Amino acid sequence: MKKVAVIMGSDSDLPVMREAVEKLKFFGIPYTVRVISAHRTPAEAERFASTAAAEGYGAIIAGAGKAAHLGGVLAAYTTLPVIGVPIKTSMMGGLDSLLSMVQMPNGIPVATVGVNGGANAGILAAQLLAVGEPELTAKLEQFKADMSEGVRKKDAAVQEML
Amino acid sequence: MKKVAVIMGSDSDLPVMREAVEKLKFFGIPYTVRVISAHRTPAEAERFASTAAAEGYGAIIAGAGKAAHLGGVLAAYTTLPVIGVPIKTSMMGGLDSLLSMVQMPNGIPVATVGVNGGANAGILAAQLLAVGEPELTAKLEQFKADMSEGVRKKDAAVQEML
Amino acid sequence: MKKVAVIMGSDSDLPVMREAVEKLKFFGIPYTVRVISAHRTPAEAERFASTAAAEGYGAIIAGAGKAAHLGGVLAAYTTLPVIGVPIKTSMMGGLDSLLSMVQMPNGIPVATVGVNGGANAGILAAQLLAVGEPELTAKLEQFKADMSEGVRKKDAAVQEML
Amino acid sequence: MKKVAVIMGSDSDLPVMREAVEKLKFFGIPYTVRVISAHRTPAEAERFASTAAAEGYGAIIAGAGKAAHLGGVLAAYTTLPVIGVPIKTSMMGGLDSLLSMVQMPNGIPVATVGVNGGANAGILAAQLLAVGEPELTAKLEQFKADMSEGVRKKDAAVQEML
Amino acid sequence: MKKVAVIMGSDSDLPVMREAVEKLKFFGIPYTVRVISAHRTPAEAERFASTAAAEGYGAIIAGAGKAAHLGGVLAAYTTLPVIGVPIKTSMMGGLDSLLSMVQMPNGIPVATVGVNGGANAGILAAQLLAVGEPELTAKLEQFKADMSEGVRKKDAAVQEML
Amino acid sequence: MKKVAVIMGSDSDLPVMREAVEKLKFFGIPYTVRVISAHRTPAEAERFASTAAAEGYGAIIAGAGKAAHLGGVLAAYTTLPVIGVPIKTSMMGGLDSLLSMVQMPNGIPVATVGVNGGANAGILAAQLLAVGEPELTAKLEQFKADMSEGVRKKDAAVQEML
Amino acid sequence: MKKVAVIMGSDSDLPVMREAVEKLKFFGIPYTVRVISAHRTPAEAERFASTAAAEGYGAIIAGAGKAAHLGGVLAAYTTLPVIGVPIKTSMMGGLDSLLSMVQMPNGIPVATVGVNGGANAGILAAQLLAVGEPELTAKLEQFKADMSEGVRKKDAAVQEML
Amino acid sequence: MKKVAVIMGSDSDLPVMREAVEKLKFFGIPYTVRVISAHRTPAEAERFASTAAAEGYGAIIAGAGKAAHLGGVLAAYTTLPVIGVPIKTSMMGGLDSLLSMVQMPNGIPVATVGVNGGANAGILAAQLLAVGEPELTAKLEQFKADMSEGVRKKDAAVQEML
Repeated sequence: MKKVAVIMGSDSDLPVMREAVEKLKFFGIPYTVRVISAHRTPAEAERFASTAAAEGYGAIIAGAGKAAHLGGVLAAYTTLPVIGVPIKTSMMGGLDSLLSMVQMPNGIPVATVGVNGGANAGILAAQLLAVGEPELTAKLEQFKADMSEGVRKKDAAVQEML
Repeated sequence: MKKVAVIMGSDSDLPVMREAVEKLKFFGIPYTVRVISAHRTPAEAERFASTAAAEGYGAIIAGAGKAAHLGGVLAAYTTLPVIGVPIKTSMMGGLDSLLSMVQMPNGIPVATVGVNGGANAGILAAQLLAVGEPELTAKLEQFKADMSEGVRKKDAAVQEML
Repeated sequence: MKKVAVIMGSDSDLPVMREAVEKLKFFGIPYTVRVISAHRTPAEAERFASTAAAEGYGAIIAGAGKAAHLGGVLAAYTTLPVIGVPIKTSMMGGLDSLLSMVQMPNGIPVATVGVNGGANAGILAAQLLAVGEPELTAKLEQFKADMSEGVRKKDAAVQEML
Repeated sequence: MKKVAVIMGSDSDLPVMREAVEKLKFFGIPYTVRVISAHRTPAEAERFASTAAAEGYGAIIAGAGKAAHLGGVLAAYTTLPVIGVPIKTSMMGGLDSLLSMVQMPNGIPVATVGVNGGANAGILAAQLLAVGEPELTAKLEQFKADMSEGVRKKDAAVQEML
Repeated sequence: MKKVAVIMGSDSDLPVMREAVEKLKFFGIPYTVRVISAHRTPAEAERFASTAAAEGYGAIIAGAGKAAHLGGVLAAYTTLPVIGVPIKTSMMGGLDSLLSMVQMPNGIPVATVGVNGGANAGILAAQLLAVGEPELTAKLEQFKADMSEGVRKKDAAVQEML
Repeated sequence: MKKVAVIMGSDSDLPVMREAVEKLKFFGIPYTVRVISAHRTPAEAERFASTAAAEGYGAIIAGAGKAAHLGGVLAAYTTLPVIGVPIKTSMMGGLDSLLSMVQMPNGIPVATVGVNGGANAGILAAQLLAVGEPELTAKLEQFKADMSEGVRKKDAAVQEML
Repeated sequence: MKKVAVIMGSDSDLPVMREAVEKLKFFGIPYTVRVISAHRTPAEAERFASTAAAEGYGAIIAGAGKAAHLGGVLAAYTTLPVIGVPIKTSMMGGLDSLLSMVQMPNGIPVATVGVNGGANAGILAAQLLAVGEPELTAKLEQFKADMSEGVRKKDAAVQEML
Repeated sequence: MKKVAVIMGSDSDLPVMREAVEKLKFFGIPYTVRVISAHRTPAEAERFASTAAAEGYGAIIAGAGKAAHLGGVLAAYTTLPVIGVPIKTSMMGGLDSLLSMVQMPNGIPVATVGVNGGANAGILAAQLLAVGEPELTAKLEQFKADMSEGVRKKDAAVQEML
């Protein structure tokens, strides 16, 4: 199976990006976690993205905050799908991170999830890889069924309570 | 090769979503175009999403504006990756569409591109399918090289002009 | 008297939605409380909304946060009035929830109250049902008079204090 | 059947509010159209709202722009449901009108629809009155079915075209 | 000297509005403090504003939050200048209060100060009354001089410190 | 009677500020119109504001756009009330101008009207001067009555039409 | 004298960036104009920024829109000051471009001017280079004096007119 | 070497502006720290800016919040580059401060860094002065290399951890 890279622009993004890692673990997807800054270690960003496909990666998850260029910088150097996770900031709750990630110019998309959406980035990566992996599809269907079951239990509890 | 579904919530979204179709054509990816409204034909949305994987689709592109639920509603019924295209509105330039698409709850991601990003949605779909299609990867690399070449020509023209 | 359904997308919305329930209790309106997720239990959302009118409901209150599709998804399957309660988030204080609820496309309205407006949703439900219930109108008038009286007492206290 | 009042703060709101009127006509609901300004004819606003229930109104639709107080001022003087229509302005596409309408304090809800949502306000009024009018419910169901049919036709046309 | 009315829509606005009162005290301006709600005690709002000029008021300060109609409702019933104080809320830091106050329609201005600007509202009231009160002008000039002196002391302290 | 100064930061603000002038003319208030830039002719701004009270002005109206410092810079040099008119820009419909004017620090208020609110600035100036001018109060009351009459005529016309 | 590079992410930014060029010409500063895309020609961006200091540049002006990474990507590879020009977009009037440029992480500043502020970028570049060029300082002072004179002429014209 | 002035509008801005000072110290740049208010000590702002070049300053850093005019007021009186630091406020996380600083009119730029970007302001000042100071350039390159090294260490630590 292809690997997924989880890259964060700063180790302060770790609490959010850890949720992406946990989802990859849950789905049994091999992964690498890196701290690479688009602005402080740009050469490493270029090197990583340029060789990611050859190194066996199938997707890259990039989390960053404020003027969040990490996703775009990685996407500039690869044709692998790049999933962007805007990190919450004090500027309107992360609107700066979100717009810096999602508003990419024509030709270079970044597949953006919601602010602090680490877990959803991990799930989305699983969905991408599942295209060619029936076993992963089965796990995703089970995951979805378990979520439904979780809501149903809360539904029962709340009906009881009120 | 897997097919890609291009779904729009209203035929007024056609100018933007046509750009997604053109990119799919360009990359030689089979596709279907549909008008399905999350609110006006919800049963059709459910039916389409529930059966999309079995029907041979590898990804769904969903374009909608304002309270843009289409991506989320489709994602609720499939484990295929859903790519969301927020359509520009008069409410802060499409911020309503963007937030309605990207801010999905935990467990159900929508891979959102920029406002009116039809072309980028088509490219992202190609990137997803390329995971298992070396030929598609080659085309994406060529596309990227052509874009670079296009910028270099404009660079030369502008240097000449000013 | 018709019943009112109070539906929340997640049990984390309970503190806000409980205020709707308390207002319904106050006005003596029968109600049901449910946790139904537009994205995690979409089939249940469809089932509930499709049968709500026949089950004796006169209105549905739907509370959800972020990409808050719950109100729209329920409204897609019923002609009962749906009252939307946008739940506060960190994204600009709930602007994502508000826009995702209120900016509905032509044909499918959601009657939206303010962010975290659980109490107002309960009062609005009472106002809707009061159309055919003179007793409820009397209670609403008394409620309004009591609110006025409450403000007058605070007015007197503040005049005393300063 | 109860009547519905369609009130606008200025005759410049007429293009949007006319859509509300057209929907009321469509559903066969008796209505009155008025220009009443919360700030320029406040006494008339008070008089109208205070007597609306006794005059046979079942709901009030209020459209206004910018610091849009009309809905709130009417709601202060009646227990009838007040439906607010925020009119689009140049301030972030009508965000001023929307927030001025929807963010009502505890105790006095305004059932707000989307910016320029005149048509949806008319439909919502029909939904409110339908609680006690089976015939109106039948018309709403037919309206919903016709909308679905309209989308299906566009779907067929678009599939043909692309 | 004319009196100034300090009116708040809710006693929860007291901490901010108290700063207006303190400034009026400081300048020796007679004042009245009231809790009057545009929505919960609208008749009292009308009564107060209609008679304020005759009762010897020279200006009205109105503080309110969210859909903050208080300033506009008072201004509708008087030709006295109305000073609006938008109270901070969780919706983008009080943007709802600010837009609801400042974006008044043509003909009915509300002189709006910054979010939570209770103190500035008191100073502005003093500036208005000073037009015909040379003594008040002298006090305002002294106040301005004292502020400058305060900044100069902090300037000296900071220069010392760093 | 005191004079009113109408100052604009650029002659491109003339269409909006002309409305202020027209209102001053209407109320028979003597005025001066100036183009003074807080940034391009700061010494003139200082000179004007410092001497305005002595020159017989009772209020200053300041219109500016974008980083609209004009009102604040004038207010820094006078104790006269300064009325700010934020000019509409392409940045969220003038939100930059509005926030730059209204969010003044403690001690130096600017009485801000709505975006492009030239007419309201003129009316507000009349309200300020009316404190000591009974004749002006009478004119303002007549103006208010005429506005009401205008709305009533439109009300009649719209009732006729629909 | 050091040269200034004027770099735009797309030739559609030319109308705005031409104003920067005109200011550089006006001040007699040697310049180069380039089209270099952070995402489409990233290697060229790296190459240019890495060698700019050695090539005799004293500052870089970078104009880009939407997810405007150009300034940050250049700043990552040079210690020369980078001046960012956010280009206006339909997303809230260029707020996406502005936040993507100005909200840079600690350590890598981009000196950002206002939306579409091409002319100001050129002036700022002149101010930077003037630190070691007395002749440039003299020109800047003359430019400032001419601007003042321009405002004074408009002031006279407007006083005449109104 | 030229000096840098660090000016804040209020001593409450000290925690942010101290970071600018620390960076100047780090780079061995002589500096002065001042508290000067654009609104409370405007004459001092004028005096400081008018004489700054002659006093040996090469750049001015100005930090202020809300209607943050300090940068613009200083820039009005000098041709030295002015670096603006918008201080975070409760209004959308400092959007008021940012727009009040960055949206300067044509002719008078303020080089704006991100909200609370004190450190970046210090670094930018070093970059400006480095144009004529090879030693400073060497220090900036070392600083950049150290930042990269810091990220690489965190990268290694995170790879170890996860």
